[in-house]
Amino acid sequence: MSAQAMPSPTHPSPREMPFEEIDRIVHVAQAAAEAWASSDAGSRSRLLRELAAALENGREQLVALANEETFLGAPRLNGELDRTAFQLRAFADAVDAGEPYAFIDDPAVPGAPPAGHPRLVRVTLPLGPVAMFSASNFPFAFSVLGGDTASALAAGCPVVVKAHPAHPRLSAAVFGLALAAVREAGAPQGVIGMVEGASRDVGVYLVRHPGIAAVAFTGSFAGGAALQREANARPVPIPFFGELGSTNPIVALPSAIGAQGLALAKMLGASIAQGTGQFCTSPGVLLMLEGDATDAFIRELAREMDSQSTHAMLSPAIRSAFDHGVDKLVRHAAATRITTGESSADKHPVPNLVALDMDAFLAHPELREEVFGPSCVVLKAGSVDEMLAALRAIGGSLTVTVWGAEQEDADSRRIVRQAAAIAGRVLFAGVPTGVAVTRAQHHGGPWPASTQPHTTSVGLMAMQRFLRPVALQDPPEWMTARAGVPL
Amino acid sequence: MSAQAMPSPTHPSPREMPFEEIDRIVHVAQAAAEAWASSDAGSRSRLLRELAAALENGREQLVALANEETFLGAPRLNGELDRTAFQLRAFADAVDAGEPYAFIDDPAVPGAPPAGHPRLVRVTLPLGPVAMFSASNFPFAFSVLGGDTASALAAGCPVVVKAHPAHPRLSAAVFGLALAAVREAGAPQGVIGMVEGASRDVGVYLVRHPGIAAVAFTGSFAGGAALQREANARPVPIPFFGELGSTNPIVALPSAIGAQGLALAKMLGASIAQGTGQFCTSPGVLLMLEGDATDAFIRELAREMDSQSTHAMLSPAIRSAFDHGVDKLVRHAAATRITTGESSADKHPVPNLVALDMDAFLAHPELREEVFGPSCVVLKAGSVDEMLAALRAIGGSLTVTVWGAEQEDADSRRIVRQAAAIAGRVLFAGVPTGVAVTRAQHHGGPWPASTQPHTTSVGLMAMQRFLRPVALQDPPEWMTARAGVPL
Repeated sequence: MSAQAMPSPTHPSPREMPFEEIDRIVHVAQAAAEAWASSDAGSRSRLLRELAAALENGREQLVALANEETFLGAPRLNGELDRTAFQLRAFADAVDAGEPYAFIDDPAVPGAPPAGHPRLVRVTLPLGPVAMFSASNFPFAFSVLGGDTASALAAGCPVVVKAHPAHPRLSAAVFGLALAAVREAGAPQGVIGMVEGASRDVGVYLVRHPGIAAVAFTGSFAGGAALQREANARPVPIPFFGELGSTNPIVALPSAIGAQGLALAKMLGASIAQGTGQFCTSPGVLLMLEGDATDAFIRELAREMDSQSTHAMLSPAIRSAFDHGVDKLVRHAAATRITTGESSADKHPVPNLVALDMDAFLAHPELREEVFGPSCVVLKAGSVDEMLAALRAIGGSLTVTVWGAEQEDADSRRIVRQAAAIAGRVLFAGVPTGVAVTRAQHHGGPWPASTQPHTTSVGLMAMQRFLRPVALQDPPEWMTARAGVPL
Repeated sequence: MSAQAMPSPTHPSPREMPFEEIDRIVHVAQAAAEAWASSDAGSRSRLLRELAAALENGREQLVALANEETFLGAPRLNGELDRTAFQLRAFADAVDAGEPYAFIDDPAVPGAPPAGHPRLVRVTLPLGPVAMFSASNFPFAFSVLGGDTASALAAGCPVVVKAHPAHPRLSAAVFGLALAAVREAGAPQGVIGMVEGASRDVGVYLVRHPGIAAVAFTGSFAGGAALQREANARPVPIPFFGELGSTNPIVALPSAIGAQGLALAKMLGASIAQGTGQFCTSPGVLLMLEGDATDAFIRELAREMDSQSTHAMLSPAIRSAFDHGVDKLVRHAAATRITTGESSADKHPVPNLVALDMDAFLAHPELREEVFGPSCVVLKAGSVDEMLAALRAIGGSLTVTVWGAEQEDADSRRIVRQAAAIAGRVLFAGVPTGVAVTRAQHHGGPWPASTQPHTTSVGLMAMQRFLRPVALQDPPEWMTARAGVPL
């Protein structure tokens, strides 16, 4: 999603936490793990609701701090705070409905196996302390009290937050409110901890820590893949739930652009530039069939993108990576830049639309890499087969959007199948930016979009990442009598 | 579970398949993937039922072949064939009930986010061709048509079986029947393929193959961990569902051995020796509190184990590993051998019960390694705390059995919690050998018992390994109109 930025002159360097202090924080989380794992629904939902209220009560100060550190602007940050409080309460509701305590009860069947069997009760138990790596680009929703934290707490796991170095003051302020909410709710001390540091060492130390049972990560491909290797290389490997990055192709078929081309081009242009393109679901590839209508659509899209205003990017490191990524595209022999805005170091980044030759796109993996920011590649395909080849080459993506598949025919079926084969979410209307927090959401997708494509980091199913099934065979009465409290 | 044995003089070397032939087999599976992914419930369940019937119809020949190659004996092999047919039909029933086609439908909610959102339909889609590594010790139930194959086919994935080199003729015979069943059921050719070879190279080639979308593996820790590294190191990593090994501790508390000690000792002795101990769930550690009743229990257990008859092990390599493992235990300064049977190269292996000093067990990881075969370590703990320390040191295990936790008290709660923290299944009666095929079963557990502790390789939830969620946002009518057929 975004680089774990290094400190820079315009960003105050966050405190580099000594390893002994990280040890203490993880140990407190471990000490809280058993009590939190056996906590009842009321205790968990009380904490989640206190946390939501804490964010809302602190709104004025928090949004101002977030804006100073991220430049995302008050309207977006207020909306993101709303969403963060909403998802804390959504998980509270799920806990109150008993979801983390759900079990499957297979009564004993008399007789010889294979049909006969003892009673088996399949419960799900929390994994233990979760290391949660905040993202730079969602200072509320994928940060200290974001979806990973909410879902892990709901599952019964303490959380050790790795604060993002791009917004250290906001992280500290939210964490302070969280600690007060933990006390207010009567939850075990240590159920939320936070470590700080911009160095790679702090993150690696946390992932390697024997007291950590699982990792949730949202960030860059390079950073996530490196931490995943650390998780796999531990003496006892642990689950690593990483959301790493995505190009989010848009397939605009002729029937869609014929009917509503102008409106779609405007919507797409706004989506690419929104938040200066700093979304993991920002559209990075536009795939269309050759033709006059396509050329008109692209002209309209470029016009719309040129008209969009942007703001400063999250950090100088992210800005520099964006400029570098755009440069790599624009300078390629197979590229034609379509937008006309001129970027320069002393201005905000300008949206970038580049047409690439299909053969070059298929041949050169570096042209398919995510450019984090307001940049999109246009590909004109000579056939549906070429479109399918492009989707296959793009590979794992959080989303694919297909406009114009309303009629069932062989081509639309092939395109939709290929889209579903590489994506965690397939959209048939609208744009992929904006991820609904609901039960059917799936924010994941085949590698490298996510490291565990069966799981989601947004929506109510996110809690399942932190619950591990255990079958109880012939359990004593006392163990199953108290429905709603595990063991 | 068992070593991927190398060929040896008493086992005919299976054919070493050339890589080009493996390519052809994977390509045929890939070609079948789309049709099988979009097949309806009737097509899938028809194939699964044909496969079950094929096993039953071929029983006489298959059991005889299996016995020649594995020495497991006709009663056990007939029972295993029954179980294998049973689970093929259990997955057929699950398919007929619509399980792989289940979806979550969140209707659109009007209004602004976060509460307002578009319609989202969460479906689950098959991953694609699955490489399935057969085990040596279950020539039917974890082999060509075993649980991994049944669950992958039910999910809509073609399967490429890696035949186990310890039973090549049985594998070929079952595969021949499977191909006939595929034709009979009208399923796509290529929905089941099989590769052969005893070398490490064949397995690695298959796991690295770009046409393979996931791996299911049952076997040794060393073999499984090596293949998992290959899966993770691919340019595009793929899910690796491995069940690697386990010591399956038995915690026998005073209340249990007081009440029914003699019967439990007999049951446990039989379980340790059953099938010459060649089960992934064979009890490998017995954990008791010091005392006279414990000493009497251990004497009775040793007597029972000495009275058990065994048969030849699955392969000379497995026999040699067993002798080596027993030797390592017995020769340790902290060990006292309790059983009295004398092992020798020209006899079947004799059951082995060894008492180990608790401090040595906690200090030396090599004393905690699985010894595949009829061997068990006895540990006498001075306190419940020491018992808990032993369980923690044992780490991830497919099962933990706790006898004597019928009364709820602080100690039994602590022991059960620690058992559940390291196991996929916790038993409160009976022995862990014998794994029921039912919905609430969970045959997995924290690493190294399994590489993906959220998943099971036995029971109806096993199908979920091969289904990946995809959220469809604002799907066209045609896509959701045909309930029961994905895309």
